[in-house]
Formats: sequence, structure tokens, C-alpha cells
Amino acid sequence: MGGVTTAAKEPKQDRSRATRQRLLAAAVACLAERGWAGSTVSVVAEHAGVSRGAAQHHFPTREDLFTAAVEYVAEERSQALRALPVQDRASVVAALVGLYTGPLFRAALHLWVAACDEEQLRPRVTELEARVGRETHRIAVELLGADESRPGVRETVQGLLDMARGLGLANLLTDDSARRDRVVAQWTALLDGALGPAAP
Amino acid sequence: MGGVTTAAKEPKQDRSRATRQRLLAAAVACLAERGWAGSTVSVVAEHAGVSRGAAQHHFPTREDLFTAAVEYVAEERSQALRALPVQDRASVVAALVGLYTGPLFRAALHLWVAACDEEQLRPRVTELEARVGRETHRIAVELLGADESRPGVRETVQGLLDMARGLGLANLLTDDSARRDRVVAQWTALLDGALGPAAP
Repeated sequence: MGGVTTAAKEPKQDRSRATRQRLLAAAVACLAERGWAGSTVSVVAEHAGVSRGAAQHHFPTREDLFTAAVEYVAEERSQALRALPVQDRASVVAALVGLYTGPLFRAALHLWVAACDEEQLRPRVTELEARVGRETHRIAVELLGADESRPGVRETVQGLLDMARGLGLANLLTDDSARRDRVVAQWTALLDGALGPAAP
Repeated sequence: MGGVTTAAKEPKQDRSRATRQRLLAAAVACLAERGWAGSTVSVVAEHAGVSRGAAQHHFPTREDLFTAAVEYVAEERSQALRALPVQDRASVVAALVGLYTGPLFRAALHLWVAACDEEQLRPRVTELEARVGRETHRIAVELLGADESRPGVRETVQGLLDMARGLGLANLLTDDSARRDRVVAQWTALLDGALGPAAP
């Protein structure tokens, strides 16, 4: 009996996890395309092919759904970055800048800006932003082989991520990729000089 | 009679210009504090102490009012920057970064993000962003004494402004000034090396 129960339970948990992931992916796509004002639980449930009741079972409030969605996709992207083979610094910088120019950044930006005006959203997004920011910094240090015990290295990496965020903003309304490539090439050279040889 | 007419006309033009400027300043404050959703012509007119009819005489549509407002304040800030006495590079970088951490940046950010989803707003904001961006770049080159005929200098200055924009975004929900000062100090040193001596 125990075996049967487990077998019956597992697929149900799998289904529940799959539903959850479909909702999270649909929530990020919705935020990126329609902004906060156009992103409701109902719209996301419909996109994900899930009933509104099932969506609310997973995410009781709109804030729950959208903060979880941005976090989920940020974690997925972090894992993908960590799984990259060892690369030269130019490729690493390009991959880091890429974090800020896709649908995840658009979704996160809509959430941040909405959090300026919405009291319920603000503390949760602030906390999420800090967590995702720390994780991105850790990954950047690791992939760049940066030695943070050397003075200025920590701030150099932070400034690079600030630049990447600014480049994401510049890409919001127009395709800024040609200009961005030139800026990234030049700043990679500056960074390389500042960081010195990669830590082993 | 000619003299009298001119005298009577001037104060009226002055009053009209003063009303226009009050509306523009109120529109930027409103965008920065309430976001796009909370920023209507009526709300701005009330803040500025102007009738709704007078506001609509100056700015027929909501898009007219808010794009004009962001442009007006951006121009005011540009003029203030140009009027600065000659300064060392660290002060110039601090002043440039300061462009992206105040109410004007918050207002512009709300307008950009709203323009993602609003067809009527998008082309106007895209055009405004390009114009303000070019002007800011020109001022940065001038104040930094950067020689753009040298390879990489143009992209170095662009990257600095992208970093400044990213630092503005990091300051949206929390006071990021302590971290920002350290990042700016480090990148000013890197930038100084890349730009070489200031052009005379």
C-alpha cells in the first residue's frame, strides 16, 4: 500500500509543480509584455491554461504571484550562468549584460517601478531585489575570476553590473544592441586592466 | 498706443510663461511621486494652482504635458551642468551621476516604462530619450575634457552614463548612496586612466 500511495502522490506533486512553473513563466511574460497595470492573476492563469482557482491556490495574492515569478526566473538564469563552461572575460561580460536585456529584466523593471507606488509590493520587491542582486554579484565575481581581497575589485564588479543595468534601461524602447556592443567591448578592456589576471 | 499695447502684452506673455512653467514643474513632481497611472492633467493642474481649462490650453493632451515636462526639466538640469565652473573629474562624474538619482530620473523612468505599453506615448518618449541622451553625452564630453578623436573614448563616456543610469535604478526603492559613492570613486579612477589628460 505504501508503495502505491507514494506512486500516486508523486505524479500529483509533479503536476502541481508543473502548474506552478507554468504560472510563473506566464507571469513573467505577462509583466514584460503588458506591464504591472495589465498583469492580473486572471490574465496569467488564462495564459498558463490554468483555472483562476488553481492559480489562487498556488499564489493567494497578485503580489505573491509576481514576486515569486521574478525570483523564479532570476534563479533559473543564475543557474544557467553558473553552468557555463569557463570562458574568457569578454564572453562573461557579454553573458552578464545579457541578464539585463531580455524579458526578465523588462518584467523586473515593471515590478520595481510599480513597487514605488504600491505599499504592499514595495517591501517584498526591495527584499527580492537585494537577494537577486547579491546572487548576481557572487556569480559575476566567480565567473570573472575576480579577487575581491584586492582593493577596488569589489566596486569594479559592482560598477560593471550597474552599467549592465543601465544598458538594459537604454534597450527598453529601442534596439540598442549595436551601441551596446561597442560600449561593452570598451568597458571589458577597462575592467580587464583593473581586475588583473583571473584568480585560479 | 503701440507702446501701451506692448506693455500690456508683455506681462500677459510673462504670466502665460509662468503658468506653463508651474505646470511643467508640477507634472515632473507628480510623475516622480505617483507614477504614470496616478498622473493626470487634472491632478497636475490642481498641484500647480491652475484651472483644468488653462492647463489644457497649454497642453492639449496628457502626452503633451508629461513629455514636455520631462524635456523642460532635463534642459534646466543641462543648463545648470554647463554653468558649473571647471572642476576635477571626480566632481564632474559625481555631478553626472547626480542627474540620475533625483526626481527627474524617477519621473523619466515612469514615463519610459509607461511608454512600453502605451502606443501614443512610445514614439514621443523614444524621440525625447534620444534627444536628451545626445545632449547629456555632449555635456559629459565637454565637462570631462574628453578627446573623442582618440579610440575608445566615446564608448568610455557612454559606458559611464550607462553606469550612472544603472545607479539611478539601484536607488529607486532604497537609499543606495553609500554603495554608490564607493562604486563612483573606483570607476572615476579607472575612467581617468582611460581618458588620459583633460583636453584644454
